[in-house]
Amino acid sequence: MSRAVLRRRVTRVRWGSEPADAPGPSRSTREDVLAVEEPLEIRIGGRSWSVTMRTPGDDFDLVAGFLVSEGVVAAAPELASLRYCAGVTETGERAENTYNVVDAVLGPGAIPPRDAHARHSTTTSACGVCGTTSIDAVTKEARFELDADGDAALVDAGLLASLPDRLRAQQRLFDSTGGVHAAGLFTAEGELLCLREDVGRHNAVDKVVGWALREGRLPLSGTVLQVSGRASFELVQKARLAGIPVLAAVSAPSSLAQQLAERSGLTLVGFSRGTSFTVYAHPERIRLVE
Amino acid sequence: MSRAVLRRRVTRVRWGSEPADAPGPSRSTREDVLAVEEPLEIRIGGRSWSVTMRTPGDDFDLVAGFLVSEGVVAAAPELASLRYCAGVTETGERAENTYNVVDAVLGPGAIPPRDAHARHSTTTSACGVCGTTSIDAVTKEARFELDADGDAALVDAGLLASLPDRLRAQQRLFDSTGGVHAAGLFTAEGELLCLREDVGRHNAVDKVVGWALREGRLPLSGTVLQVSGRASFELVQKARLAGIPVLAAVSAPSSLAQQLAERSGLTLVGFSRGTSFTVYAHPERIRLVE
Repeated sequence: MSRAVLRRRVTRVRWGSEPADAPGPSRSTREDVLAVEEPLEIRIGGRSWSVTMRTPGDDFDLVAGFLVSEGVVAAAPELASLRYCAGVTETGERAENTYNVVDAVLGPGAIPPRDAHARHSTTTSACGVCGTTSIDAVTKEARFELDADGDAALVDAGLLASLPDRLRAQQRLFDSTGGVHAAGLFTAEGELLCLREDVGRHNAVDKVVGWALREGRLPLSGTVLQVSGRASFELVQKARLAGIPVLAAVSAPSSLAQQLAERSGLTLVGFSRGTSFTVYAHPERIRLVE
Repeated sequence: MSRAVLRRRVTRVRWGSEPADAPGPSRSTREDVLAVEEPLEIRIGGRSWSVTMRTPGDDFDLVAGFLVSEGVVAAAPELASLRYCAGVTETGERAENTYNVVDAVLGPGAIPPRDAHARHSTTTSACGVCGTTSIDAVTKEARFELDADGDAALVDAGLLASLPDRLRAQQRLFDSTGGVHAAGLFTAEGELLCLREDVGRHNAVDKVVGWALREGRLPLSGTVLQVSGRASFELVQKARLAGIPVLAAVSAPSSLAQQLAERSGLTLVGFSRGTSFTVYAHPERIRLVE
C-alpha cells in the first residue's frame, strides 16, 4: 500500500482569519501527501487491450472488475489467471517489472472483447507502458513552451484565491442540477474569457481549449485555468498542450499531475478555497501582494 | 442549451430536523432537473476515432479541444472543418441526425493520430452511436437479471442514509490525501463487504466488483453499492453488470444514469446526505420504517 501515496514539499498560501492577524497572504512550505496516479496497461492473453489511470493497489481486482464491466467475464472460472508481466524495451530487451502491466488469461465461458486491440483510455498514445517510466509513457509532446511567459510573477495570490467563487457564481447548469463540473479560463488580471460546464471534468476543459483554438488564441500564454474538481494528470496535460501556464483546482492533485506540472514548468494549485490554497509546482508565477 | 438538462419525477426521502417533527423518514415526489449525459462519437475525416460521454452543447469546442489535448492540432488552420453528420443504420440506410456524431476534417500542419481507428473511451463497444438511440448504443448486455431479488423492499431508508458516513469513516487514503474516490459494497443489513479507493471513481467500483468476481460472489444480489461522487451512466452500467440492485451516490446522477437505471430495474439513489436522499429510479426496494 506504500505505492498508493507520495510525499512532496508544497507551498501553502493562506490569509489570517482576522484582518488584524495578517495584512496579506503568508507563504510557508510543508510536506504534503498525494494520492498516487499511475497508468495500468491491461492485456488479454498477451495482447494489449486498455490503458487506464489508477491508484496502484488491488490491481488484480481492478482488472477483474473492468472485465466484468465490459461484459467479458461474469463468473470466477471465466478468468483463468491474472499476472503482472515484465516489459520489453523498444530494442526488444526484457525490461524490469513496473507492476503497471497486468495480463489476463480468459477461461471457458468468457466472451472475449470484439476488438482485442481497442484501447479504451484517453491515454492511448502510450505504446508500451512498461520498459519506461510511467510518466514518459503517457506524456504527450507539447507544441508550445510554457516558459514563453518568462520567469516573472504572473498572477496575484488574492486574485487566484477568488477564482473558485467566481467560477461557481457563473455555473448555470450546476445551479439547476447540482451535478456538473466547470472549467473557467481567466486572464492574469481576472477577466473571465470562457467558461464551460459538463458532466465530465475533462470535457469542460476540452470545451474551453477548443473555444480558444477556434478563436485563434493558442497558445494561451498569460492565462489561468480554474477547474471545479480535482487536478488529474490528464488535466495538467490538457493545460500544457494548450500553453496555459497556471492550472488551479478546488480539490487535490494526483501524484502524476504534480510530477508532470513540475517537469513541464506549469504552476499547479490545489485546494483553492477562498482564503487559502496550496501550490504543488512552480510557485514563482504567484505574487504575494503586500 | 435545452438539451443540457432533463426533467424527471423523483422520490425525495427526508427526516425532520427535530425528532418531534417526524418520527421517521417521510417520502414525497417532486420534479427534479438532471444534467444530460449523452455519447458523442468523434470522427476524423469520416473514420470513427473516439466515443466520449458528454453534456450536449459546445460540441464543436469539445471536439476541437480534444484534438488539441491529443496533440493532433495546435492552431486554427490545422482544423479545416467540423460538422454534425447523419448516421447510417445497420442495413445501410441513412438515419436521422442525432447530433451525437461530429466529423473533423484536418488541415495542413495537423498531426493525425497514429491509429485513427483507436477508440478512446470505455464505451467503445458502441459501434454506431448514430442510427439508434444513444442509450441503446452504449448499453452493454447484462448476464444477470436484477429482479432476482423479487419486488420486496430490500433496504431500510435509515440504513441507506447512514452509508455515506460509514464509507467516509473507512477511507484511509482520503484521510491522508483528500483526493480519492471510494466505493463500498454493503449487505442490505449494513454489513460492509468490501471498500476500495482510487483517484478514479470508476476504478474504485471496478476494484469492488473484481473482488466479488474473484471471491465467486457474482451476481451481487441483495447488496447496496455506495459511491463517494456522482452517479454517471458508466457506474450504473457497472452495478448492473455485477448484479447489484441498489446504487447510492453522494452527489447527482446524470440523465443517462437515470434512464439506464429505470430501464434495467436498478434502484438509483442520489444526494445521499445523512438525513435525506433522492431516489431517481425504482424506489420500491427502499423501506420506510415506522
